[in-house]
Amino acid sequence: MTNNRKELWLTLMKIVAVDPFYLRMPDITTAADGTQDTLLVRVRTDTGLEGWGECDASPLVSLAVYCCPMSHGNIINIRTSLIGETLEGPDDALRLSEKVLRNGLDIQQIQHAYSGAEIALWDLVGQRLGKPIYRLLAEMSETSDIAHPKLPYASVLFGDTPEDTYQIAVGLRERGYRAAKFGWGPMGKFGAANDIALVEAARSGMGLEAQIMIDAGVVWGNDHETAYQRAEAFAQFSPTWLEEPLAPDAIDAYGALTQRNPSVPIAAGEGSDTYRTAEDLIVHGGVQFVQIDAGRIGGIMPSFQVRQLAEQHGIQYVNHTFKSHLSLAAALHVFATNPDFDLLEYPAAGSELSQRLVTEPFPVKSDGMVRVRELPGLGVRVDTAAIRDYLAPVRIEVGTDTIFAVQDF
Amino acid sequence: MTNNRKELWLTLMKIVAVDPFYLRMPDITTAADGTQDTLLVRVRTDTGLEGWGECDASPLVSLAVYCCPMSHGNIINIRTSLIGETLEGPDDALRLSEKVLRNGLDIQQIQHAYSGAEIALWDLVGQRLGKPIYRLLAEMSETSDIAHPKLPYASVLFGDTPEDTYQIAVGLRERGYRAAKFGWGPMGKFGAANDIALVEAARSGMGLEAQIMIDAGVVWGNDHETAYQRAEAFAQFSPTWLEEPLAPDAIDAYGALTQRNPSVPIAAGEGSDTYRTAEDLIVHGGVQFVQIDAGRIGGIMPSFQVRQLAEQHGIQYVNHTFKSHLSLAAALHVFATNPDFDLLEYPAAGSELSQRLVTEPFPVKSDGMVRVRELPGLGVRVDTAAIRDYLAPVRIEVGTDTIFAVQDF
Repeated sequence: MTNNRKELWLTLMKIVAVDPFYLRMPDITTAADGTQDTLLVRVRTDTGLEGWGECDASPLVSLAVYCCPMSHGNIINIRTSLIGETLEGPDDALRLSEKVLRNGLDIQQIQHAYSGAEIALWDLVGQRLGKPIYRLLAEMSETSDIAHPKLPYASVLFGDTPEDTYQIAVGLRERGYRAAKFGWGPMGKFGAANDIALVEAARSGMGLEAQIMIDAGVVWGNDHETAYQRAEAFAQFSPTWLEEPLAPDAIDAYGALTQRNPSVPIAAGEGSDTYRTAEDLIVHGGVQFVQIDAGRIGGIMPSFQVRQLAEQHGIQYVNHTFKSHLSLAAALHVFATNPDFDLLEYPAAGSELSQRLVTEPFPVKSDGMVRVRELPGLGVRVDTAAIRDYLAPVRIEVGTDTIFAVQDF
Repeated sequence: MTNNRKELWLTLMKIVAVDPFYLRMPDITTAADGTQDTLLVRVRTDTGLEGWGECDASPLVSLAVYCCPMSHGNIINIRTSLIGETLEGPDDALRLSEKVLRNGLDIQQIQHAYSGAEIALWDLVGQRLGKPIYRLLAEMSETSDIAHPKLPYASVLFGDTPEDTYQIAVGLRERGYRAAKFGWGPMGKFGAANDIALVEAARSGMGLEAQIMIDAGVVWGNDHETAYQRAEAFAQFSPTWLEEPLAPDAIDAYGALTQRNPSVPIAAGEGSDTYRTAEDLIVHGGVQFVQIDAGRIGGIMPSFQVRQLAEQHGIQYVNHTFKSHLSLAAALHVFATNPDFDLLEYPAAGSELSQRLVTEPFPVKSDGMVRVRELPGLGVRVDTAAIRDYLAPVRIEVGTDTIFAVQDF
């Protein structure tokens, strides 16, 4: 009995290392391009298996959540919560998430930071059990385990002018995109006529057959009246949605906007740091598309819970992904099995760092669609050799202790 | 004209330095005692004036928000947003807050971190204009500028046993406290009988004349049924409120609990990181006391806005303060002018660090009350000499740059 127990214990997979890595391009600009830097998290186990995840968040601030000294029982860092824990199946991933979030109750950044590790835990569980993550989620929720292809929409920034935007749209169309989202840049900054000209240019460059989406980049703050007027003015160009016309926490303004039933559906949600924030936006903001970033909301499971909430409310779940294809993999597993959630944000103009980050990016197939991989875990591998040059060494000293030091993978 | 302009420009007060300081006790335990460490923020101007503020948050994670490298236009650190800006009056404080939050849109920790600087800006504006902060708030909101005394309640942890709790309560009573809150520790962990015995001990030690409050420390998570049962069981001891029986974001569970009208009022809100979180808790959670920490929610102005919302909803605003009397000063200014909001959380068992932090702590006067100071700004001064020994040097290197290094005040 004792021997058996000991053997059982020995065969349990244990977490032995949790390492965040800060990577960045040589030059960072104020452009709304999330691929200029990133925070990757690698979780290693005593079996030799390793999992990876990516955060969409300030790399340094999130990294600090992995190593910050304890303040009291509600501020304990992620490494401390995870190292030494066993990880065998989905239940362990849920248990560890609960522990991490409870230990980090008073760390506001906890979800942004933990997202990378949470995704890495699912990557590990999938590898351990030999199953893609989307199937683990289907088993847990007792729902369909059939994955469906997604229509990728290129996610790009508006050009500085309507003419530039037109050229960008033509380029995307020539590369075969049947859907594209244009966002940020000049939108909302130079009056109604320019806003409308930007949308017209996008439609005209992409052609009448394509889907176009407009991302206003929170530019109208609390002003739901202007947001409504723009939605009405843009309707002639039939965009699939108008995204983030308002500030992320302007829930009442979103409610006022959506209650008027604008002619273009309203999308939002990328700023959701917690499940509750997304729920608040769906229930009280009345959005018709909810856009969740698994690299911000705390990883795969809270994203999956928002997907389930969207299903209950009859609205559409869409990923928010403006990082590498490591993030895209995590995003895909969350909603692969729902055929009605058919759109996929697919970064089309990312930095070299983001493009080199995984060994095999997700291709757009000849039918114009993107599919989740039928491989264990996330189904992608980080190409550490290709991105080593972008790794920023980080060293943090508090008092007389070096609490963090990373030079290499 | 040019000369006049130049002189005007020269007389405008400008921010020249924004410095976060990490202070801590030599030994940190997992006890729910928020005074074991702290993050202070000092803002200096070219006039020689300096303002201070305190954050209730992970010091290292929040400190990183002051110095993190830019990721893109939505991740820009607080120092970059503030240094070089003019600061003359309340409008500037609001303008700078909007700038900081906009530049930090994608930094989840932004409110926790910015709280200290925001409070320091109000401290500076008050000093510049020769007015206490509560009067600036009254002028801006065109409401009464008469400050009212508050009844301080000692905020302590439950003893490990009912007997220990009784002794703690007797001690508080002997020190003259007419109100005390007991929280965390064993509450909720050893069954109903022990929970009830703990409350009975608190009541019995404090006496029948005193107000007692019970802080369940989020122990029942989403389980509003147990929370309801405990509220009913505790009612015989007439606590003023039952605080945080549920997880901070369990808004629907709070709603379900408060809709049953438990015999003890429900209090919550210390976890509010944003105005919206507090609003969500008030509107959809139905709490009767909303507890706001100006050191978490982003400082004085968002706290004041929650106070106004509480007034509109006919519920009571209370401060959450488990740091030094620097935080207590900020808390007092927010709701000094509302005589109905008469309770003040007053840390009664803080660390030496927190007790030495300001030169003149707020005394409990002979009438048992605490009053805001009629001095410009916050009305308290940080005793840097007294707390120098607690200052933890911090050094952060990213790539080849030292992006943060503090050795002394």
